[in-house]
Amino acid sequence: MSLLPSKSRLAHIVFESDDRASKTFDLSVLLLILGSLAVVILDYEPSLNKKYHYEFYVLEWIFTGLFTLEYLLRIWLSKRKLGYFFSFYGMVDLLAIIPTYLSLFLINTQFLVVIRALRLLRVVRIFKLSRYLREAETLKTALRNSRTKIQLFVGTVLTIVLITGTLMFVIEGPESGYTSIGVSMYWAIVTLTTVGYGDITPITPLGKFLSSVIMLLGYAIIAVPTGIVSSELTAVQGTIQSSGKKVCPTCKSRHLDDDANYCKYCGEAL
Amino acid sequence: MSLLPSKSRLAHIVFESDDRASKTFDLSVLLLILGSLAVVILDYEPSLNKKYHYEFYVLEWIFTGLFTLEYLLRIWLSKRKLGYFFSFYGMVDLLAIIPTYLSLFLINTQFLVVIRALRLLRVVRIFKLSRYLREAETLKTALRNSRTKIQLFVGTVLTIVLITGTLMFVIEGPESGYTSIGVSMYWAIVTLTTVGYGDITPITPLGKFLSSVIMLLGYAIIAVPTGIVSSELTAVQGTIQSSGKKVCPTCKSRHLDDDANYCKYCGEAL
Amino acid sequence: MSLLPSKSRLAHIVFESDDRASKTFDLSVLLLILGSLAVVILDYEPSLNKKYHYEFYVLEWIFTGLFTLEYLLRIWLSKRKLGYFFSFYGMVDLLAIIPTYLSLFLINTQFLVVIRALRLLRVVRIFKLSRYLREAETLKTALRNSRTKIQLFVGTVLTIVLITGTLMFVIEGPESGYTSIGVSMYWAIVTLTTVGYGDITPITPLGKFLSSVIMLLGYAIIAVPTGIVSSELTAVQGTIQSSGKKVCPTCKSRHLDDDANYCKYCGEAL
Amino acid sequence: MSLLPSKSRLAHIVFESDDRASKTFDLSVLLLILGSLAVVILDYEPSLNKKYHYEFYVLEWIFTGLFTLEYLLRIWLSKRKLGYFFSFYGMVDLLAIIPTYLSLFLINTQFLVVIRALRLLRVVRIFKLSRYLREAETLKTALRNSRTKIQLFVGTVLTIVLITGTLMFVIEGPESGYTSIGVSMYWAIVTLTTVGYGDITPITPLGKFLSSVIMLLGYAIIAVPTGIVSSELTAVQGTIQSSGKKVCPTCKSRHLDDDANYCKYCGEAL
Repeated sequence: MSLLPSKSRLAHIVFESDDRASKTFDLSVLLLILGSLAVVILDYEPSLNKKYHYEFYVLEWIFTGLFTLEYLLRIWLSKRKLGYFFSFYGMVDLLAIIPTYLSLFLINTQFLVVIRALRLLRVVRIFKLSRYLREAETLKTALRNSRTKIQLFVGTVLTIVLITGTLMFVIEGPESGYTSIGVSMYWAIVTLTTVGYGDITPITPLGKFLSSVIMLLGYAIIAVPTGIVSSELTAVQGTIQSSGKKVCPTCKSRHLDDDANYCKYCGEAL
Repeated sequence: MSLLPSKSRLAHIVFESDDRASKTFDLSVLLLILGSLAVVILDYEPSLNKKYHYEFYVLEWIFTGLFTLEYLLRIWLSKRKLGYFFSFYGMVDLLAIIPTYLSLFLINTQFLVVIRALRLLRVVRIFKLSRYLREAETLKTALRNSRTKIQLFVGTVLTIVLITGTLMFVIEGPESGYTSIGVSMYWAIVTLTTVGYGDITPITPLGKFLSSVIMLLGYAIIAVPTGIVSSELTAVQGTIQSSGKKVCPTCKSRHLDDDANYCKYCGEAL
Repeated sequence: MSLLPSKSRLAHIVFESDDRASKTFDLSVLLLILGSLAVVILDYEPSLNKKYHYEFYVLEWIFTGLFTLEYLLRIWLSKRKLGYFFSFYGMVDLLAIIPTYLSLFLINTQFLVVIRALRLLRVVRIFKLSRYLREAETLKTALRNSRTKIQLFVGTVLTIVLITGTLMFVIEGPESGYTSIGVSMYWAIVTLTTVGYGDITPITPLGKFLSSVIMLLGYAIIAVPTGIVSSELTAVQGTIQSSGKKVCPTCKSRHLDDDANYCKYCGEAL
Repeated sequence: MSLLPSKSRLAHIVFESDDRASKTFDLSVLLLILGSLAVVILDYEPSLNKKYHYEFYVLEWIFTGLFTLEYLLRIWLSKRKLGYFFSFYGMVDLLAIIPTYLSLFLINTQFLVVIRALRLLRVVRIFKLSRYLREAETLKTALRNSRTKIQLFVGTVLTIVLITGTLMFVIEGPESGYTSIGVSMYWAIVTLTTVGYGDITPITPLGKFLSSVIMLLGYAIIAVPTGIVSSELTAVQGTIQSSGKKVCPTCKSRHLDDDANYCKYCGEAL
C-alpha cells in the first residue's frame, strides 16, 4: 500500500520529534509507558489482584507486544543496528520487555518491568527544543558547580553519623533498640535527616539530651546544602543577568544580543 | 424610607471596596465566613457536639440565612445576572449555602460547608490596593518562572519513588508491612519528604541500608526546590533593584521613575 | 562606708553596660538566670526530685532572694519608679520572683518561674555595642520586608489544612483515628510540616494516595518561605554592598563613607 | 639494601602529598582507615559477630599493626618528635591504635576505634592543592559571617523550646508521657525540628492545638537559618563576581586578573 510511509519517513517519525507525526508517536509511547507502569503497580495491589488479575494479565501482554514491536522497529530503522543494541537506550528498551517474557518461565519477576520508568528519560526528547532542556541545563550547571561543596558536606554528615551512632550505641545499648553500631547509625541518619520514624527512640535522659543536640545540629546543617544550591542557582542566573547579555544554555556562549532569539554560535533557540 | 441606600449605592457597597461602607461590608463577610467555618469544625468535635449541638445548629442556620441573603442581593444588584450565576465566584457562593439546605434531606453532608473557605479568596479584594497583591504578584512571577524547573524536579522525584518503592517491596516484602508496590511507593514518599510516620519501617539490614541512602538523598534534594524558588525570588527582586527603576507589578512595565507612586502605563498604585 | 559606690555609680552599674563593673553585673545576672532555670528544670525531673529536692528548694530560695534584691535595687535606683514598675521589663522582673513566693501558699506553681527566660531578653543589652544588634537588625529588616509574603503563605497553608483535613475526615473516618475535623486538621498540619508523628496515619488506599499528594505538596511549598527569607536577606545585604556604601543598621542612613566606624547621622557604632 | 628510600625521601612520602609515591601512601592510609571502620561496624552486628568474629578479630589486629607501624614511622621521621606527639594529629593517631591494645585487658572498649574517623581529617590533605580546600574556604567564610545570626537564632529556638516545653508539661501532664519539663523540652525539640518520632504525642485538644502552632512556627523558622546561609553564600560569591575580579580563597586578596591561575600575592592555585 503506497499509503504506508516510506522507511526514511518512518525513521524520521521514530527518531525525530519535530513535526506532528513524530510528536504524536513520542506522545503515544509516553502514554503507553505510563499506562504499563500503572498496570504493574495496580496488579501488585492484593485486593485488585484478586478481582482483576486476568484483565491486568491481558493488558500487560498488549503493552509488551506494542513495546516489542517498537523495539523491532527501532532496530530495523537504525542505521547502526549494533550501535543501537549496545547503547544505553537500546539496553533499556530491551530490559523493558524481557521481564514479561521471563515471567513465562519464572515466578514473580513481573515487578522488573518498572525498569520501563527509565524509558521516560528518552521522552524528554519530545520537549527537545522547548524550555525544558534549558532549565535542566541551568539546574545541572548549578549542581555541577556545587559538587565539591556537596561532597564535603556528605563527608561531614557521614562522620557525624558514625560518631553519634557509636555514642548512642554505648549510651542506650540493646535494651532501647540500639542493637548494633549499624542500627545506631541508621537511627542517626533517620534523626539527622528529620525523617524520625520513631521505630528506635532514646529512653535514657542522657540519650534524649544527645538526641536533642543531634536534632538541632541536623536542623542547622540542613541549611547548608540548601544554601549551596540556592547560591549557585542565583550565581548561574546572575551571570546571565549581570553580563547584560543573554547566555546560550546549550553552548554557554555569552555576549549574545539582548534581542536575539537564537544563539548566533550554535543556532539553538534561546 | 429614604434612609435606605439607593440601588446603585448598594451595588457600590457590595461590589467595590474603596470607601468605609464597602470595606465594612467586606470585613463583615470575612468574619461571617471565619465564624461559620469555626462552627462547622467545632460541631464535628464529638465532645462538643453532644453538649452544644442545638446551639451549633441554630448558629449554622443563622450563617446560612445571612449568606443566602447576600447571595440574593448579589444576584439582584448584578447587571449581568446569568454571567454572575455561572462565574467561578457565583458557583462558590451558591455551593457555600447549598449543603445546609441539603442536610434537611440527606444525613451528614454538613461538612460540605467547608467549601466556604474558597469564599475567602474573594476577600483578598479588601486589600486590593494594598501591598498584598503586589507581593502575591512577586511570588506568582517567581513560581511561574520556576515552573519548568519544578516540573522536572517532580518528575525526578516520582521516578525515584517508583524505583525505590519497588526495590523495598522486593527486599522487605509483606512481612515488614510493604504489602504492595503501591504501599511501598507511599512509604517512599513518606520517607523522601522526611515526614516519617513510622507506620511502615524497614526491618532487614539491607532495607535499613537502602532507606538510609534514600533519606540522605531526600535530605540532599530538598535543597533543589528551595534553591529554585530562592534564586527566582532573588532574580525577580534583583530585576527591580538592578534596573534602578521601579517595575509595575501589574503590567510589568519598567522604566518607571523612582519617585512614582502610580504606574504611568496602567495607573496601578505601586 | 565610703567604699560603697555612690547611688549614681550604682545606677550606672545596674542600668548601663559600658564599663567593667556594669558588664560584670549584667553577666552575673545572666548566669543567675541560667542557673535558676536549670534548677527548675532539674527539680521537675522525677528521679532527681526524690534525691535532691531539699537542695533544689534551698537553691531556688537563694536565686529568688537575689532576684528580689535586684528588683528592689532597680526600683530604688530608678528615677521614674512607677514608669519602671509598669514597663514591660518591670513586669517581667516582678513576674520572675512572684511564683516562688506564691508556692508558699499554692501547690505546683513553681514551674511559673520559667518566665525568667524572658529576662534573658534584657541581657542582650550586654552586647549592645557589639555586632549582635546589627545582625538582629538585618534579620528583622528581612523578616519585616517579607511579612506580607509570609502572611499570604500562612493563609494559603491554613486553607490547604482545612480542606485536606475535611477530605481526610470524610475518606478515613473515626475508625482510622480521624475522629473529628479538628483532629484531621491537626493531622494535616503534622503531615504538611513534615513532622509526621505517626499517631494518626491513613489506612485506606485512597487516604494513602491523598496523603502522598499532601506530603509532596508540603515538600514543595516548604521551599516558598525559605525562598522568601533567603531572597530578602540577599536583598538587604545586596543593598549594603551594591550601594558601595555602608548602611547604618540603626537609622538606615546610607551614603556613609566606607571607612566610617560610626554612623554620621545617629552616631551608632557600625 | 639501597633499594629502600632514604630517610628524607621517606619523610617526603609520609608528610607531603605532591608526587606519585606520597599520594599513593595517603590513599593507602585512607583505604585502611575506611576498611578498619567497616570492620568495627560489622563486628558489632550481632548476626555477623557470631559467624565471623575470628576473621574480624584477625583483621582488626592487622589494621592496628599497620597503624602502629605508621605511627612509629611518623615519630621516627618527625624532626620535632615531642611536637608531633602532643599535636592534635599526634594524639588522634595515638588514640586510633590504643583501643585495640586496651581490649586485651578490658572488655568492650573496641568501639573506641571509631576515633579513627577523625584521622580522615588529615586525608583531606591529599586534595590539598585541589578545589576542595577552596570550596571549604567559601563554606567556612559564609558560616563565619553568619555566626552571630545563627547564635541569635539558636538562642531564640532554645527560649521557644523552654517555654513551649513548660506549657506542654502543664497542659498534658505525665499521663500523656510529658513526665517532666526536661522530657517536654525534648518533645519540643523533636517537634520544632520536624523530626517527629511520635514516642510522645499530645492527647488533649488544647495540647494538639498548641502543638499545631509550634509545628507551623518550626516550619516557618526553619526558613531563617537556610536563608542566612544562602544569602551569605550568595554574598561571598557575589563579592567574587561583582568585583569583576578573582578573589584568592586563601589570602582573600582581590583585584587579581581575570585570567590568573595563581594568586599573585600568596601564590596559591586559584
